Amino acid sequence: MEYDTLISNGLLLTMEEGLPVIEAGAVLIKDGIIEACGRTTEFSRVNVKTRIPADRKIILPGLINCHTHLPMSMFRGLADDLPLDVWLNDHIFPAEAKHINPESVEKWSRHSCMEMLLSGTTTCCDGYFYEASVAKAVMASGIRVVTGQGVIDFPAPGVPDPRQNIQTAIDFVEQFKDVSPRLYPSIFCHSPYTCSKETLVAAKQSAHSLGVLFQIHAAETKNEKKMVQGIGKMSIVEYLESIGILDEKTLLVHSVWIDDQDIDRIKKNNAAVAHCPESNMKLASGIAPIPRLIEKGVSVGLGTDGCASNNDHDLFAEMDTAAKLHKVALLDPCVMDARTTLKTATIQGAKAIGLGHVTGSLEKGKRADLILVDRDKPHMIPMYDPYSSLVYSAKASDVSLVMVDGIVLVRQGIVL
Amino acid sequence: MEYDTLISNGLLLTMEEGLPVIEAGAVLIKDGIIEACGRTTEFSRVNVKTRIPADRKIILPGLINCHTHLPMSMFRGLADDLPLDVWLNDHIFPAEAKHINPESVEKWSRHSCMEMLLSGTTTCCDGYFYEASVAKAVMASGIRVVTGQGVIDFPAPGVPDPRQNIQTAIDFVEQFKDVSPRLYPSIFCHSPYTCSKETLVAAKQSAHSLGVLFQIHAAETKNEKKMVQGIGKMSIVEYLESIGILDEKTLLVHSVWIDDQDIDRIKKNNAAVAHCPESNMKLASGIAPIPRLIEKGVSVGLGTDGCASNNDHDLFAEMDTAAKLHKVALLDPCVMDARTTLKTATIQGAKAIGLGHVTGSLEKGKRADLILVDRDKPHMIPMYDPYSSLVYSAKASDVSLVMVDGIVLVRQGIVL
Repeated sequence: MEYDTLISNGLLLTMEEGLPVIEAGAVLIKDGIIEACGRTTEFSRVNVKTRIPADRKIILPGLINCHTHLPMSMFRGLADDLPLDVWLNDHIFPAEAKHINPESVEKWSRHSCMEMLLSGTTTCCDGYFYEASVAKAVMASGIRVVTGQGVIDFPAPGVPDPRQNIQTAIDFVEQFKDVSPRLYPSIFCHSPYTCSKETLVAAKQSAHSLGVLFQIHAAETKNEKKMVQGIGKMSIVEYLESIGILDEKTLLVHSVWIDDQDIDRIKKNNAAVAHCPESNMKLASGIAPIPRLIEKGVSVGLGTDGCASNNDHDLFAEMDTAAKLHKVALLDPCVMDARTTLKTATIQGAKAIGLGHVTGSLEKGKRADLILVDRDKPHMIPMYDPYSSLVYSAKASDVSLVMVDGIVLVRQGIVL
Repeated sequence: MEYDTLISNGLLLTMEEGLPVIEAGAVLIKDGIIEACGRTTEFSRVNVKTRIPADRKIILPGLINCHTHLPMSMFRGLADDLPLDVWLNDHIFPAEAKHINPESVEKWSRHSCMEMLLSGTTTCCDGYFYEASVAKAVMASGIRVVTGQGVIDFPAPGVPDPRQNIQTAIDFVEQFKDVSPRLYPSIFCHSPYTCSKETLVAAKQSAHSLGVLFQIHAAETKNEKKMVQGIGKMSIVEYLESIGILDEKTLLVHSVWIDDQDIDRIKKNNAAVAHCPESNMKLASGIAPIPRLIEKGVSVGLGTDGCASNNDHDLFAEMDTAAKLHKVALLDPCVMDARTTLKTATIQGAKAIGLGHVTGSLEKGKRADLILVDRDKPHMIPMYDPYSSLVYSAKASDVSLVMVDGIVLVRQGIVL
């Protein structure tokens, strides 16, 4: 039997149950699939086409970015340090109206994919308009992606008539359902305040029938509740539960303004949460109760959000921020420890977007999505605990190799 | 007249009053001093030995790290995600007792200098024990530094008898006062809870007589007040003011638990503050009222703190975090805008440590401490506003050249 690739002699963090740390570890790959993980000595006799030495490197699963708007890299830094309504109404919405078209969406999605790959992200979960153009860019890049066609009750780029918003999303999902094994189409309702109850229900039912992930920004800002018609005294999460939106194929993005009862509702329905700490900080939205969600067993993944509100796709920086933010918010240095944080950017992120069986950890049978991280940069020395080093010290620029589906996409900081 | 160096054709941010942005800007240098800044075309006829093209680069002052414990890079990641007392008493203090000696201090200070230089820091303000060894390492590295010999009322590394703590600090200052134009010795009292009133007063008086900066950790944690003997009902800052510690040559490190009256006291006495947001977050100390301090006119500089509580010396990450943290803390996206934040890491930082006349901005007569930042990485594109790009998008790894005193110390990511 001839295998395709053996990555050997790295410090291997598989991120599987129990979080084993394997010194001089190796990953054996065939047809884009992980055949085995273990100590390098176990593979001394295997017959492989390509050997990738990982001496002085950490081998870990590629990072999962659970919330992006890839084309928005075109607006990176366009309008910072502004009140949310001024930012949206005076800058982002007009810029979108003027500059968003299928070509620009494809171009800047490609740009974002390059940025994500260079910083060690192998999977992202996106939501925007002209999502077919995003899908094209993503397929060309080699990255793995959940692509959500946007649904909103206003005229939107590519959907001038909002009465067509759900049908457009259904058409998108059907068009891309079997196009690529790395592409998972989805439906992305913008929010409970920009989609009516009828829209939300119809969109969720469509996602359910099609068997795809349903994404929605939910409870992002303190004022959001006031903008939702018909919500009465319910909380945002309670409202979404009451109309049947919450289930194991729903991803709630942000979930900042939720209480303990909301957390119980999310858990009870097996919905997941995408946590975007840097965006929530920069837009002054608030601090999501992430340690409590994780404690209750909710799948929480990490996301950068779009580049207009971050302003990058760097999950290493996002991990560092997430780990520190919750400590200071709760005045407890023990919460969001390095292991928990790295899980949100790998296996828990994969689970949150419905790809826990495909990626997010290095285990036999999963797709070979992995990265190598350099241990020799001054800021990575010394290393007492690789989890601490990855979360608190590692930089995006330490990623020396990126593989998706067994294919090397980045080597020595260069997109191949 | 022959000049030494002309750096030309970069996007020049001088960080001087008014924050001019000069397209195709240039910096002319002779004998380590800035002779002129302006548009490149103004220097077309000058006679220079070395020309450094800065096309597609931002030219800005080298960053100022206002609070470090350089040797502590040896404990980077040693003990994370722990309660403060467990971290200190069970890990850091025993590790210091075992591993701190003049050789280890020098070795790891060199390591920290390398890390700082690679990430664009040209000046730091340090405080530790065996500070003579820190000074040696720093002089070898070429970086600019304020070095504070530690004073504490317990046996400490190199000062087994605490009755000698102030004399040791005085000896250190006298020994290093005129050793190097890049070295500024200082006295660093650990804190109001580890130094008695008598020690604080005597140390400050010594610093005053010697004309050097006095540094002290102050109001870092909520519980600190309870540990200060004889403070009564006073706040930490009120106590320090009452015993004559606050003046224009005092740097208060952290200043997390201070109220509006304390801010007025700091301002009235022209004392400065070193803000270490990532350390304060990671140790769950709290969030310092930095926007209020800046609004009141206090000089606030940015610091990383030691590597055991951050875990790196990366001021680009620190700027990003600082800008975002205060927004979410105050639920106001307008505070700590990019310009204000970059000032804390440059000119305001220089002022806070008493070097505002030497470094921190690119102006005729100041030392030539500057960096070039690459604009061509995907995460730096597009660029609508260079301040936003530097604070919210730039990474330490984007620094392509570092100069201190007119000497190039880093080029293309390599310490020369």
